[in-house]
Amino acid sequence: MATSTTKTGQPLDRTSLDTLLRRRLFFTASFEIYGGERGLFDYGPPGCALQANVVDLWRKHFVLEEDMLEVDCTMLTPEAVLKTSGHVDKFADWMCKDPKSGEIFRADHLVEQVLEARLKADKEARGQTVPIDEEKEAKKKKKIKDAKAEKLDDAVIQEYEETLAKIDNYGGDELGELIQKFNIRGPTTGAELDPPKAFNLMFQTQIGPSAHKPNGYLRPETAQGQFLNFQKLLEFNQQSMPFASASIGKSFRNEISPRSGLLRVREFLMAEIEHFVDPEGGKKHARFDEVKDTELSLLNRKTQLAGSTKADVLTIGEAVSTGLVDNETLGYFLARIQDFLLKLGVDKSKLRFRQHMANEMAHYAADCWDAELFTTYGWIECVGCADRSAYDLTVHKDKTGAPLVVREMRAEPLVIEEFQVNWNRKKLGPKFRQDAKAVEAAVEALSQDLREKLSWELEQSGKIEIPTPGVGSGTTELGKDLIQIEKRKRTEHVREYTPNVIEPSFGIGRILYSLMEHVYWTREGDESRGVLSFPPTVAPTKVLLVPLSGNAEFKPFLRNLTTRLRRLGISNKVDDSSASIGKRYARNDELGTPFGITVDFQTVKDKTITLRDRDSTKQVRASEDEIVAAIKALVDGEETWEQVAKRLPAFEGQDID
Amino acid sequence: MATSTTKTGQPLDRTSLDTLLRRRLFFTASFEIYGGERGLFDYGPPGCALQANVVDLWRKHFVLEEDMLEVDCTMLTPEAVLKTSGHVDKFADWMCKDPKSGEIFRADHLVEQVLEARLKADKEARGQTVPIDEEKEAKKKKKIKDAKAEKLDDAVIQEYEETLAKIDNYGGDELGELIQKFNIRGPTTGAELDPPKAFNLMFQTQIGPSAHKPNGYLRPETAQGQFLNFQKLLEFNQQSMPFASASIGKSFRNEISPRSGLLRVREFLMAEIEHFVDPEGGKKHARFDEVKDTELSLLNRKTQLAGSTKADVLTIGEAVSTGLVDNETLGYFLARIQDFLLKLGVDKSKLRFRQHMANEMAHYAADCWDAELFTTYGWIECVGCADRSAYDLTVHKDKTGAPLVVREMRAEPLVIEEFQVNWNRKKLGPKFRQDAKAVEAAVEALSQDLREKLSWELEQSGKIEIPTPGVGSGTTELGKDLIQIEKRKRTEHVREYTPNVIEPSFGIGRILYSLMEHVYWTREGDESRGVLSFPPTVAPTKVLLVPLSGNAEFKPFLRNLTTRLRRLGISNKVDDSSASIGKRYARNDELGTPFGITVDFQTVKDKTITLRDRDSTKQVRASEDEIVAAIKALVDGEETWEQVAKRLPAFEGQDID
Repeated sequence: MATSTTKTGQPLDRTSLDTLLRRRLFFTASFEIYGGERGLFDYGPPGCALQANVVDLWRKHFVLEEDMLEVDCTMLTPEAVLKTSGHVDKFADWMCKDPKSGEIFRADHLVEQVLEARLKADKEARGQTVPIDEEKEAKKKKKIKDAKAEKLDDAVIQEYEETLAKIDNYGGDELGELIQKFNIRGPTTGAELDPPKAFNLMFQTQIGPSAHKPNGYLRPETAQGQFLNFQKLLEFNQQSMPFASASIGKSFRNEISPRSGLLRVREFLMAEIEHFVDPEGGKKHARFDEVKDTELSLLNRKTQLAGSTKADVLTIGEAVSTGLVDNETLGYFLARIQDFLLKLGVDKSKLRFRQHMANEMAHYAADCWDAELFTTYGWIECVGCADRSAYDLTVHKDKTGAPLVVREMRAEPLVIEEFQVNWNRKKLGPKFRQDAKAVEAAVEALSQDLREKLSWELEQSGKIEIPTPGVGSGTTELGKDLIQIEKRKRTEHVREYTPNVIEPSFGIGRILYSLMEHVYWTREGDESRGVLSFPPTVAPTKVLLVPLSGNAEFKPFLRNLTTRLRRLGISNKVDDSSASIGKRYARNDELGTPFGITVDFQTVKDKTITLRDRDSTKQVRASEDEIVAAIKALVDGEETWEQVAKRLPAFEGQDID
Repeated sequence: MATSTTKTGQPLDRTSLDTLLRRRLFFTASFEIYGGERGLFDYGPPGCALQANVVDLWRKHFVLEEDMLEVDCTMLTPEAVLKTSGHVDKFADWMCKDPKSGEIFRADHLVEQVLEARLKADKEARGQTVPIDEEKEAKKKKKIKDAKAEKLDDAVIQEYEETLAKIDNYGGDELGELIQKFNIRGPTTGAELDPPKAFNLMFQTQIGPSAHKPNGYLRPETAQGQFLNFQKLLEFNQQSMPFASASIGKSFRNEISPRSGLLRVREFLMAEIEHFVDPEGGKKHARFDEVKDTELSLLNRKTQLAGSTKADVLTIGEAVSTGLVDNETLGYFLARIQDFLLKLGVDKSKLRFRQHMANEMAHYAADCWDAELFTTYGWIECVGCADRSAYDLTVHKDKTGAPLVVREMRAEPLVIEEFQVNWNRKKLGPKFRQDAKAVEAAVEALSQDLREKLSWELEQSGKIEIPTPGVGSGTTELGKDLIQIEKRKRTEHVREYTPNVIEPSFGIGRILYSLMEHVYWTREGDESRGVLSFPPTVAPTKVLLVPLSGNAEFKPFLRNLTTRLRRLGISNKVDDSSASIGKRYARNDELGTPFGITVDFQTVKDKTITLRDRDSTKQVRASEDEIVAAIKALVDGEETWEQVAKRLPAFEGQDID
């Protein structure tokens, strides 16, 4: 795998970035003064503002642009709902316990780490250089000792590599076998490990004072609330299809062993869309034409099966027309997801869409693509986009009897020819008594094909035999006096169907972290001077205001500017600390603030101010009005810095990079 | 208590409003198709948009306006943190079990309901009319049978009324005594109830796979995360005081028996500010002058003690200068809270600030005022504003040793004269051995007054006796050879202090619900036509676009308008259903959409459109440009409808109210 690089192409030193992000309080370990709690992080002011801006952009890009019905459903969820959805039984990872130390490992991660350590040791034994990759640190933290430099047989190497390629697809028994086969033992004790056990990833709790055992969970995703409200949302949408609901909120997963910083956490912000669509007619999308020429980097299933990770660049129009992407609606959202990520500042060369393998997808899914972002942790799934067919609405409908369906008048009534059953109920009741209903039900359940055959038999022999489990001998004879089966026409005016669901699902925290890697770089010649080049729209703060010094004459200018900018909805901060202007700008480069204004003695004289661009460190000088207007245009995306720099006079008075 | 009224002064029929809010999907019971779960509600599209707008306004009004440091901390919280904060031991309500039916009641609510039912029955027996109040329904739901019309002795009535007045202040034993004394029994069974037991209101859960018992909780408030990060926030703020942190997020309370719809729920959105201030110097606020003339309706402690609920209208300047409100910072926030609530559309005549009684406040609190909104449920606490002194930072500092303090250089070094202890450690060690440290600590812990006295004794008699629990006989004799106590001068350059915290804490859901009651009214002559008069800033959708009919000629105009408005950040919806224009506007009156645009055949001819005002149902007609500009001015609060109606030509072509 290629090494991750900064925005300017240098190798990305994750430790430096991590230090910067913590020092500038983008995030911090939660409860740190109590020793911290693994997998839980707090966002400080810049992280929190960044998150709010990303959520705001998401809402504009998806919810407002497409008139989606946003809902806010509870995180606390009763057990029955998640039993139906399958989460109670299946939302689990495999954990392995070291019986000696009591340590618990996630089984697939343990196998992965041990095999990778052995392969690395083999390379060392063969005298090959081993790139110092990030996994090394992780391994150390997980106490996986570096295996002794030891050569492996070629066959073993191949087996290890094949195992690693499929590591996400093993069940508990298989992982147990691998652990036996490869003699993987407790990393600290060397003890034989207990066999893998399923560990459900949902946090359990008790709702109400009278529960004697856990009766609810924290939701593992925001989707269920949207499915359960389908009927009301359809009604709200005046029965009009297709439509989408959307939800932004926290979800929870009780990870066995959280690692990879912000990428695998126990509490995280999600934004999910459930787009409900008629399964008939190929799931077309009315606005597909608007995106059909968008080029995407697509890593399809076939390529992956062949052991390659080479993505193809195709327009989404081609991808849908060749059937690579299952349908227009799914394709439409893939293109829109890419648009969104690029608006945020994601590096296009570090974005790909990976199709799920058949065994990765739920059995009911029609197709599924993940938007993956490349980081120092490798390719990270940040957005999933699945066609979940009618699964979710169907299971909840079947369980509760609620009509989670669409009923629509047919333009043309549908005439159906079918074999219908007529009963002579006057005779049926007295003859079968308490079994009469069961006999009726058994016949009503028969398919049209069988009915046709039985109709013919009844005509021929005057009687038929039908299987009736639980009634009499299990077979019941019915004569012409009791039953008639005839072909008749029926006219259906209303069509009833369960919509299919296309689900784009965004892990906001993962997107934030990957974005921070994508926009990070260091000033040439000074690797300690980090810069986060967020686009103005998502930058936590848009403008830094720095007075040349603490001189009282500057204060009214600052107050006036800050009020003006705030009124335009442009977030800004004053830094009137005693540090040099250069230092103050460096601090704000780290915070990703795109623009800086300096107020100096010239300002007091002629009311001009300077405007500094974070990325180029170039400055222009003009009147307050002109500078404020330029900032507004820059933040709204109506002008670029290059354009502003061309039309306003350059300023090179102070050296402040 | 007065009856609650609509915006236009009619008695407010809560059932009608509730039906409207559910029909228009402002909210709905969560998991309704699974039978629902008490105390959990989902917000549908209009409720969700309203909530987002209120949060957005909160962020602008407080966080941006005052440069607060917003953080986003996790809801999952380890037990240790909440043990220190006091929640594990004290965050509980009293519950009562009916041993026959297993039903569980919240003890204070049960006493309240039974006594109220008896008082009502007494009034009926006396032939007095009883207002049909809302509690009646609640009682029915809670299966509190209406007591038989039965007269009570005057002394009993007085006792009941006194008990009700103090119902919030009883502990478990007292509630148990009241239940005995008033012979309150299981409402459905008539059985004697079990004594009240404390029920902790936090949801418990297990974090991680290795916990053998619950080791964490869902936070009951967002404050703790802010306190724990104090040190980092102070650093982020470049050590500058005062400053405030802020947080918006869900909190959880496992209510024993949720009632009152959206007002008492198990999962709710909070917005909290922690303003950290130097306790010295009277907690002044730099911007207090800006608000000092703001008039507030203040219900003080003394008035309440006298059994009255008459609030005084005072400026916050007066209230602080007379000491009624403890300090400027607290007063500043009370005024800012009122500003915020009025911006949202809260009815000023239904807003009061109630001071906490001494026994309502935590022992450490200096002062506390609740902003209460009047609704059909009575006066509802929607915002709390407490001066929590240094309590929170102190307990966490003491528990963890983390320096949750401010250190600042003194302008003038502080010279302190004090009695200092000198030890002759060469002799002390050998003499007391393992007890030496305990002896030292016992002396170091002595106050200055005691040291002065001991210094004198030592001078007089050459020895002193000090209490040393756990060492020898519990008293230790120390001679001049071991210890000296002398008055000396010490110069302190750095001042270290624990900041006090002023905490304005907003229950967003309660504000939303109360607001919906405050802006609700019905059209005269047609009580079935509800209107929600949200101010444009917070209205879920700003503009409804209605084509006169489904005619294809209207479509391009609608498309163009919707794009233009969206680009201006003005949310809008097209209603092209086949219902009459009047019906479509009625639907949107219920959704609280302040403005409506009609596109008709005149539009196709001359490109003019009509603009309708929700509250007056008056219309104007002008060019698209003029109407769009007017809407922008209205939504930004730069113009009122009256102003717009004056300058643009009235339109009375269609009757569409």
